[in-house]
Amino acid sequence: MNKNVPYKIYLSENEIPRQWYNVRAEMKNDMSPMLNPATGKPVSVSDLSPVFCTELAKQELNNKDKYIDIPDEVVNFYKMYRPSPLIRAYCLEKELGTPARIYYKYEGGNTSGSHKLNSAIAQAYYAKEQGLKGLTTETGAGQWGTALAMACGYFGLDLKVFMVKCSAEQKPFRKAVMETYGAKVVPSPSMETKVGRKINEMFPGSSGSLGTAISEAVEVAVETEGTRYALGSVLNQVLLHQTIVGLESYKAFEKIDEYPDIIIGCAGGGSNLGGLVAPFVSDKINGRHNPHIIAVEPASCPSLTRGRFAYDFCDTGHVTPLAKMYTLGNGYMPSASHAGGLRYHGMSPILSQLYHDGYIDEARSVVQTDVFAAAERFARVEGILPAPESSHAIKVAIDEAMRCKETGEEKVILFGLTGTGYFDMTAYMAFNSGTMSDYIPTDEDLEKGFATMPKTEE
Amino acid sequence: MNKNVPYKIYLSENEIPRQWYNVRAEMKNDMSPMLNPATGKPVSVSDLSPVFCTELAKQELNNKDKYIDIPDEVVNFYKMYRPSPLIRAYCLEKELGTPARIYYKYEGGNTSGSHKLNSAIAQAYYAKEQGLKGLTTETGAGQWGTALAMACGYFGLDLKVFMVKCSAEQKPFRKAVMETYGAKVVPSPSMETKVGRKINEMFPGSSGSLGTAISEAVEVAVETEGTRYALGSVLNQVLLHQTIVGLESYKAFEKIDEYPDIIIGCAGGGSNLGGLVAPFVSDKINGRHNPHIIAVEPASCPSLTRGRFAYDFCDTGHVTPLAKMYTLGNGYMPSASHAGGLRYHGMSPILSQLYHDGYIDEARSVVQTDVFAAAERFARVEGILPAPESSHAIKVAIDEAMRCKETGEEKVILFGLTGTGYFDMTAYMAFNSGTMSDYIPTDEDLEKGFATMPKTEE
Repeated sequence: MNKNVPYKIYLSENEIPRQWYNVRAEMKNDMSPMLNPATGKPVSVSDLSPVFCTELAKQELNNKDKYIDIPDEVVNFYKMYRPSPLIRAYCLEKELGTPARIYYKYEGGNTSGSHKLNSAIAQAYYAKEQGLKGLTTETGAGQWGTALAMACGYFGLDLKVFMVKCSAEQKPFRKAVMETYGAKVVPSPSMETKVGRKINEMFPGSSGSLGTAISEAVEVAVETEGTRYALGSVLNQVLLHQTIVGLESYKAFEKIDEYPDIIIGCAGGGSNLGGLVAPFVSDKINGRHNPHIIAVEPASCPSLTRGRFAYDFCDTGHVTPLAKMYTLGNGYMPSASHAGGLRYHGMSPILSQLYHDGYIDEARSVVQTDVFAAAERFARVEGILPAPESSHAIKVAIDEAMRCKETGEEKVILFGLTGTGYFDMTAYMAFNSGTMSDYIPTDEDLEKGFATMPKTEE
Repeated sequence: MNKNVPYKIYLSENEIPRQWYNVRAEMKNDMSPMLNPATGKPVSVSDLSPVFCTELAKQELNNKDKYIDIPDEVVNFYKMYRPSPLIRAYCLEKELGTPARIYYKYEGGNTSGSHKLNSAIAQAYYAKEQGLKGLTTETGAGQWGTALAMACGYFGLDLKVFMVKCSAEQKPFRKAVMETYGAKVVPSPSMETKVGRKINEMFPGSSGSLGTAISEAVEVAVETEGTRYALGSVLNQVLLHQTIVGLESYKAFEKIDEYPDIIIGCAGGGSNLGGLVAPFVSDKINGRHNPHIIAVEPASCPSLTRGRFAYDFCDTGHVTPLAKMYTLGNGYMPSASHAGGLRYHGMSPILSQLYHDGYIDEARSVVQTDVFAAAERFARVEGILPAPESSHAIKVAIDEAMRCKETGEEKVILFGLTGTGYFDMTAYMAFNSGTMSDYIPTDEDLEKGFATMPKTEE
């Protein structure tokens, strides 16, 4: 270990990776293919092309190329906010009195407030290259919608964002940021789509879900000329783009001659965690290193810890292909009392497979009051107000550092600090006033979700 | 000029300046001394000590030492978010089609969202060193209150923030961030102080002003044991701390072998602009370089362009010393329709003197709808959503770059991007919906303000 590690380890602009890393090319067991629900056959590029840009459809199905070039225009955009710093949490270590060395990769230093911009700019670029007029998407906590609004604003593309209704109500300012970047924001379920109208009829006053918002956005993309759909997580292409986070982290650790013993990330759709750990998973697959990787998910939406590894629709309205993943069932509705993102019923198929095969070593679920307590402890000493999503990772990083304090082990801990909480103050206010509650679904609640899954054999 | 200027020019952690630069030690004409209103005599350290920490009172009156050491604990805190990047605005240049080379020093990359943290952490440090229990302060747009809340949270000090009432109402989430860092936030004018009760009686339903909030915070500081007052701008000590911004910018320009022809900053209380330009003013004083320095202020609160250079109280309640500065009169009340900060009736005495003596070459006032239009143009191409305050500088930087486009001059433009606008979305929403109005005070409005000034000879 280098004894003079600075607070912030920056790579130079020239060290920004020029290729994303495609972990599928190295996986011992590739993920099961996405299936066309009509035919039961694996989807092809031409199946996906009405929904996604053609280049992105190719990336979605690519399990051959270990590295995929990042287009120059995307690299140039990255230069506005990347490389992001790897930060040594000296102040948190002191506060905890731990012998552990804690690092976090900080992705919140851009206006979208999160890592989501890494994939948004790539998706917008391919849309522009294909000569499209615009994109549609959904957003939950609002980070993805903001990121895609920025990316579309940059390339002059139209954007319609279906925003989960309870988020749109809790976060009017998120909506305003998207509008400032030129996006049109529609609370979901809306009356603009067939799917939205149906959900509104079945569940009057529904507070919405990501699964429903996805269905609405896909419907509009498919039915509007020159328009495609973009998704902020779950998909292989998104996880691919997010490997920029892991690749930069890996290089930064090489610079200071460290290697993480434990890697922690929050897991909603899985692309943040997948992107962060991908190069380290490569080390595990190839027997070079064996870091302990922990996925952290909310107790209210526990797809890895309590879900099933099976084929399911990616959306509630059943307009998407089937993917084999850890899922709570496409009809699972997390409690509206749950703050922030991490509300998706499923998990990235790549990450699901890696977890199934033991390359993601462990999944833990945590309740949100514990998460916010960790967030505030972190904020006071590290000077960054974290997003609720990211704070799931902070909670477990603190737990692991305190375990080191007990055992005296000087472990190196890396966690992903995916974003900032500036637009989550309603949740912080609830926590500060003691009115925040924890939601843990009962087995019965989960059964209701599982009942919405298709009856394919596993 | 170095042809390979990266997007972001970072200094290394070791290059963070270890001393602030005290421009007063070099000024041809020192600013006129602050006066005790009771005696009409210059204030002494012992006059100021009931209000400020003793070390800060000394800094306030120091016109001898050209450099003042930055305490190690403050440097260590700086390392969490400094050095801040000097950014080459390649995308804005391309958007404008200008031959100018535009740079901005970006101070918004920390959770307080602005440069204010640079002085907040210093003031909190000296309070802790003196063994104090806590601080009081005021905040307008909320950036300063957030910064001081972070600083006090870090050192375990109590903090009471008097927040200008219209800001507190427009920005509930700013309040929540301060509370998350442990501060107590009170809308001003309040009923907690003699001054607040008096203002509430004279102006029922008052939306508040910085001048009033300052009076309230000073009153509580003086009357509470172990408590002192902290101010986020105007004072010499604050401008001193903010020179870290200019010193880093100066070093970064040396690294890329450039020197700015034009330097632009927004001017509210003046400490941001003063801090940014201080080392460049030193070049002007000593005949080394002669950059053109422009102060930009809102048309609604035009202290430099339409105010008087005269002795005035720093607050509305007349509890502070008299300072000679450009002022609109301590009773001047800017329209509540004006967004963000830059609402203070006066201007830093140092900056006022520099402007009076021609070292600040020019002051311009701009209306807020023009400012927000510039802000959105900037946000779409540079990927940063700027604070309304900072956007005053953006507006003039764009104007200057467009002038270069007409003349073909390849001027080097530097402006200060002091912060982000994440908590100003109400104002952005007003702009986007076309309901934002511009306020330009009439001469009569200004006369009402001037009438509140003390009748001392100038």
